[in-house]
Amino acid sequence: MTLYDLTSDTATQPTDEMFDIMKTASRGDDVFSQDTSVHELEQYMADLLGHEAALFGTSGTMTNQLGLRCWLLHPPQSVLCDSRAHVHVHECGGIAYHSQAAVTPVIASNGIYLTKEDVEAHISTDTLCGAPTKVISLENTLNGTIMPIHEIQRISELARSRGIKMHLDGARLFEASQATGVSMKEYGQWFDSVSVCLSKGAGAPIGSILVSNKQTIQHARHLRKLMGGGWRQAGMLAKAALHCIKTVVPTMPQTHQLTRRLADGLVDLGFKLVVPCHTNMLFIDFSPLTTATIAVPLLEQHNIKISNTPGSSLCRIVLHYQITSDVVDRFLSLATDLAAKHKITPSGDSAICSRSSSVVSSVTDLSSAYPSVQ
Amino acid sequence: MTLYDLTSDTATQPTDEMFDIMKTASRGDDVFSQDTSVHELEQYMADLLGHEAALFGTSGTMTNQLGLRCWLLHPPQSVLCDSRAHVHVHECGGIAYHSQAAVTPVIASNGIYLTKEDVEAHISTDTLCGAPTKVISLENTLNGTIMPIHEIQRISELARSRGIKMHLDGARLFEASQATGVSMKEYGQWFDSVSVCLSKGAGAPIGSILVSNKQTIQHARHLRKLMGGGWRQAGMLAKAALHCIKTVVPTMPQTHQLTRRLADGLVDLGFKLVVPCHTNMLFIDFSPLTTATIAVPLLEQHNIKISNTPGSSLCRIVLHYQITSDVVDRFLSLATDLAAKHKITPSGDSAICSRSSSVVSSVTDLSSAYPSVQ
Amino acid sequence: MTLYDLTSDTATQPTDEMFDIMKTASRGDDVFSQDTSVHELEQYMADLLGHEAALFGTSGTMTNQLGLRCWLLHPPQSVLCDSRAHVHVHECGGIAYHSQAAVTPVIASNGIYLTKEDVEAHISTDTLCGAPTKVISLENTLNGTIMPIHEIQRISELARSRGIKMHLDGARLFEASQATGVSMKEYGQWFDSVSVCLSKGAGAPIGSILVSNKQTIQHARHLRKLMGGGWRQAGMLAKAALHCIKTVVPTMPQTHQLTRRLADGLVDLGFKLVVPCHTNMLFIDFSPLTTATIAVPLLEQHNIKISNTPGSSLCRIVLHYQITSDVVDRFLSLATDLAAKHKITPSGDSAICSRSSSVVSSVTDLSSAYPSVQ
Amino acid sequence: MTLYDLTSDTATQPTDEMFDIMKTASRGDDVFSQDTSVHELEQYMADLLGHEAALFGTSGTMTNQLGLRCWLLHPPQSVLCDSRAHVHVHECGGIAYHSQAAVTPVIASNGIYLTKEDVEAHISTDTLCGAPTKVISLENTLNGTIMPIHEIQRISELARSRGIKMHLDGARLFEASQATGVSMKEYGQWFDSVSVCLSKGAGAPIGSILVSNKQTIQHARHLRKLMGGGWRQAGMLAKAALHCIKTVVPTMPQTHQLTRRLADGLVDLGFKLVVPCHTNMLFIDFSPLTTATIAVPLLEQHNIKISNTPGSSLCRIVLHYQITSDVVDRFLSLATDLAAKHKITPSGDSAICSRSSSVVSSVTDLSSAYPSVQ
Repeated sequence: MTLYDLTSDTATQPTDEMFDIMKTASRGDDVFSQDTSVHELEQYMADLLGHEAALFGTSGTMTNQLGLRCWLLHPPQSVLCDSRAHVHVHECGGIAYHSQAAVTPVIASNGIYLTKEDVEAHISTDTLCGAPTKVISLENTLNGTIMPIHEIQRISELARSRGIKMHLDGARLFEASQATGVSMKEYGQWFDSVSVCLSKGAGAPIGSILVSNKQTIQHARHLRKLMGGGWRQAGMLAKAALHCIKTVVPTMPQTHQLTRRLADGLVDLGFKLVVPCHTNMLFIDFSPLTTATIAVPLLEQHNIKISNTPGSSLCRIVLHYQITSDVVDRFLSLATDLAAKHKITPSGDSAICSRSSSVVSSVTDLSSAYPSVQ
Repeated sequence: MTLYDLTSDTATQPTDEMFDIMKTASRGDDVFSQDTSVHELEQYMADLLGHEAALFGTSGTMTNQLGLRCWLLHPPQSVLCDSRAHVHVHECGGIAYHSQAAVTPVIASNGIYLTKEDVEAHISTDTLCGAPTKVISLENTLNGTIMPIHEIQRISELARSRGIKMHLDGARLFEASQATGVSMKEYGQWFDSVSVCLSKGAGAPIGSILVSNKQTIQHARHLRKLMGGGWRQAGMLAKAALHCIKTVVPTMPQTHQLTRRLADGLVDLGFKLVVPCHTNMLFIDFSPLTTATIAVPLLEQHNIKISNTPGSSLCRIVLHYQITSDVVDRFLSLATDLAAKHKITPSGDSAICSRSSSVVSSVTDLSSAYPSVQ
Repeated sequence: MTLYDLTSDTATQPTDEMFDIMKTASRGDDVFSQDTSVHELEQYMADLLGHEAALFGTSGTMTNQLGLRCWLLHPPQSVLCDSRAHVHVHECGGIAYHSQAAVTPVIASNGIYLTKEDVEAHISTDTLCGAPTKVISLENTLNGTIMPIHEIQRISELARSRGIKMHLDGARLFEASQATGVSMKEYGQWFDSVSVCLSKGAGAPIGSILVSNKQTIQHARHLRKLMGGGWRQAGMLAKAALHCIKTVVPTMPQTHQLTRRLADGLVDLGFKLVVPCHTNMLFIDFSPLTTATIAVPLLEQHNIKISNTPGSSLCRIVLHYQITSDVVDRFLSLATDLAAKHKITPSGDSAICSRSSSVVSSVTDLSSAYPSVQ
Repeated sequence: MTLYDLTSDTATQPTDEMFDIMKTASRGDDVFSQDTSVHELEQYMADLLGHEAALFGTSGTMTNQLGLRCWLLHPPQSVLCDSRAHVHVHECGGIAYHSQAAVTPVIASNGIYLTKEDVEAHISTDTLCGAPTKVISLENTLNGTIMPIHEIQRISELARSRGIKMHLDGARLFEASQATGVSMKEYGQWFDSVSVCLSKGAGAPIGSILVSNKQTIQHARHLRKLMGGGWRQAGMLAKAALHCIKTVVPTMPQTHQLTRRLADGLVDLGFKLVVPCHTNMLFIDFSPLTTATIAVPLLEQHNIKISNTPGSSLCRIVLHYQITSDVVDRFLSLATDLAAKHKITPSGDSAICSRSSSVVSSVTDLSSAYPSVQ
């Protein structure tokens, strides 16, 4: 029986069809920039995001750290980001390691996303004993929630007026774009560099993309070699990724609909959403049940795997195109049994959590609660 | 007319007497560990803090970063500290630069100091995509407030049970010890390394001390050379520092009393203390007056200089042994005129701020408000 | 008409057969260590080299820098290596970037490989103002030449007696092992970590392996994520690589024979070998012809591509399993025409260059002459 | 009885007169750029070297590493220097640690100093897998020998034509200037940054200077804080240093004359000079005597201390203004007894070693032989 892995959208697996497509890729050496399929993917992504050039890398961590490294050329220096940002919390302290730069993690005052005011209050310009802000790094989606394009614009205009670079960790930017209808290019215009992961919801086996201007991408290519990311016959991976972008990405709205159905169902049963459900992620509080002892093992018995925080009642659930409607049915059916057995009843709260103060604190806690968001 | 500089206790100036004492110092080369006066100071401080050995360095930033570097030997890695900590906010991002390590800045939930619970909730053990906590770095005093020895003990016991090293930024540990009666050794026992600055309230012209075990100090000595901190005939600076420790440090209680008198006076006039006044520092909110346009220029006209945040009503005031009673008199007299002129009246609040929630947020803001706390 | 790329053995291209094999690989997420095909490759390589564990990475640069990073935990520190070593010359200064460590490049006094005496004379133990030697990094083969197992043993015994770690850049260790009959395990035993590239002569599309003890590999896995080398469904690459190890590596002796035939032929025509031809590489001096204006364009007209140093007469030629006997025939035929046209006649020198002093200096020059040896 | 320390010119000790002068210094806080005496020294040195601005730092290592760090802003990157350069061999691997940059150590083909041709042959421009040369760092004097101004000019013109920055480790530039009559400004014009140590032959107790353009010095000041080099009341050290520049530096020619007399005397006795004696340093080969067992202990019995390489016959001897003529007399008298006792007779070689090939190799060996040249 198939195991349905809802711990992350990195769990998407390459299909047989992808292998047939990979066989048709060019087989040049990408270290020497000699592979046609890689070039095709890079140009496609650069165009999609409205930038000049792109670089194909091993992972989102690699393309994020490359993008940041290209702007962090003048220590003492720092990066300002959301306190829950992947670049800060889930990349092994990469900003310090690669860029000798400090991080200013800022708590989103609305509990969902950083505002221009949040950012402005934390920009450092101290050239005596501080580490001045050189990059503002945003993330969209972040824990599955969408950052409004208007807020991005406001922050970007602030950054440009201050001579600060803008980087976007768009590991799941496809999800945001598909959910909002805001094009990738509209998002891309507000940043100096964007990283887009191809092996999450997009479904490619391996790979991530960095876009920026030509000179920066040339620099990033040199740095990629330094980081050990120069790969040889990468054409097959690029070919598979481009195929996924064209065929899997357009199906994201269905996944979002399914995720919403699961969210609504769980809330109707009396469980709590602790983060708004905008795209393909759910953060559910199973209290008074604990995840470790009740919810997770039950689901696993029925081949559904989800992430949980040991000893707590918090769970992260991520859907993707390989999770079908009947998996959601089975999940809800099991949850219904669970609720009945433990006499849980729905409260009067709305199905989708609002930006209440209780959410704020929960969201803040999530950064330590979920060690491996990707 | 003398200018009274209340912006920092680093403003203490070497006296003629100190110059006479410096002339009697040994004149060996400290790079080769050949100076008797330096050895004497190092041994004195090691003994005082109950550690095996000590190293004399140029600045508190140097001895803090040396101490941390000695424990940060295994990336990916991170340091956990108060979000307002000098090592995080006021050392130019040194932890990233020197140690390739991330920082986890934690907000003190009581608004004054970190508790064991604050710390425990943020220790990272994630060896997949995190940067595990290798050092907990505390600061005492922090913004002039004292961290209770009992809380230090609780955090230290937690750290030791988890294999995490404890570092103390004791730039102003003398102030804490003099105010509480807890000996330097009692503080020292809970840490693997302690940095104590000698050119702040202690009044030495230049220098800071790192204490730890012998092997670590030997390593720190090698790293000091790497950082450019190997100095030649440093005996005179060590001799002056030791003299200050013996003569200036015992006068700190008088300075604290004077600081308290200034605090009480200002509160009685209707101004607000935003951080408890435990030792030699005051954080005053002059609202509804703004510091830049009213309070600060008036004081400067009368040769009293204080730090302020441009455009706000917040001020930092630091006293030290070279600030005499009549300076406080003059300050209060000017503040009385100011209050009268602007019709400010005392509220019913207690003279010394309690740990109310309003204080908590103010304290949090201070980290960005005061770019150069030391 | 097919282009025969003799610039590097990284030019080997994945075959259709490999794609069919990749399709059969497991499709787990290697970031979470969940892929069977990756595990199989890692275990195979660990066993082959007589080490406990292994890690699959993107490139030789990644596995070299990971191996070195694991031993470089105590700055000030340095790595001692051959002045021509890939880790020093062709990895973008990675040792400084990743490990904050200096490099002591040593000139091989015999012009071919480092001896114990060369190494011993350059070990630093200076803990005052030096960067003590923490790792000796050897390379085998280096420019296609083999380092004698006896010399490796002598250096390793020296290193162990001094508490210094031994790393091997075995990017082309398969070539050495196949040429000498010394097993991979015999080589492996003298090192604390070994990197073996799979995408050079072994013919895999992408990938390199690091072997060491379990704890070090666990550390390297965490560091791999930090470097951005955590890849998702990498099973297919591992499966292809293992296939290549089993099918391509055993054909290396034929490639060596072909390389020798090409070398002998060129020497017989009057061209000079400047580095001994031990395996699959030739360094030829086409003087008095210059490569840029005569030799290289002529070969390219006939679809044979080789590396050359602009403006000089030096060429690097690398063979691999996809270069067949008739390519060598064509090469020699073109070279014969060239020699005839330019009236070049064979000198009395032996076909394979000896360790003469003229070779020594040529070899030294090669490190700057060939910017991209891998 | 006084000990005469000829191991280094860092052994110069501050005099009572200097202490009287230090007492007259301003007592401002140099972290806040508020000290007049420091400003005066900085402006004096900037003017002397024909640069815009200067920064006073703790040590030559600090000002060298600061200067280099300011130019190393774009990894992958490297510094090209003499293989014996202090920045490479005696600063604890600082270039890797501070600047994430590789080092290309070049052997001076003439055995004394790098030529334009030596440099040109090793400049890296490889942006694929190399670390391009961003800085050429020269040293003058190096092991006491002078680099001709004409050669400096040739290298500087090459560097400028290639967009490469020029740094000078002028730890002993005063010695070169005093010996040649070439002004500090004439030397300074060929470099983008110059570090001049004040606590060597110049005789100041502590300190070194970096000069460059205003913007770079502003950056260096911020980096100095990051490195822990921000010092408080440093005016006294600056005042002492300026006094030494004006009073001790002009006496260097006498010291050079005395050094030459010692050199000639030792050569006349039959000992060998292995490096030309241009200024205040001697490298003497006492063979067939060994330094450890014969020469050094004898001298120490008579209160003369010199550096030696254990187990060899090589010694480094450094003179400075506190070494008087009678110390040289005593040294030569002891050496005469030694030569007589061991029946050593002068060879027909000239008193000052020429640039013979035997010197070349000796010089090369010196870099490892003398761990602490400064």
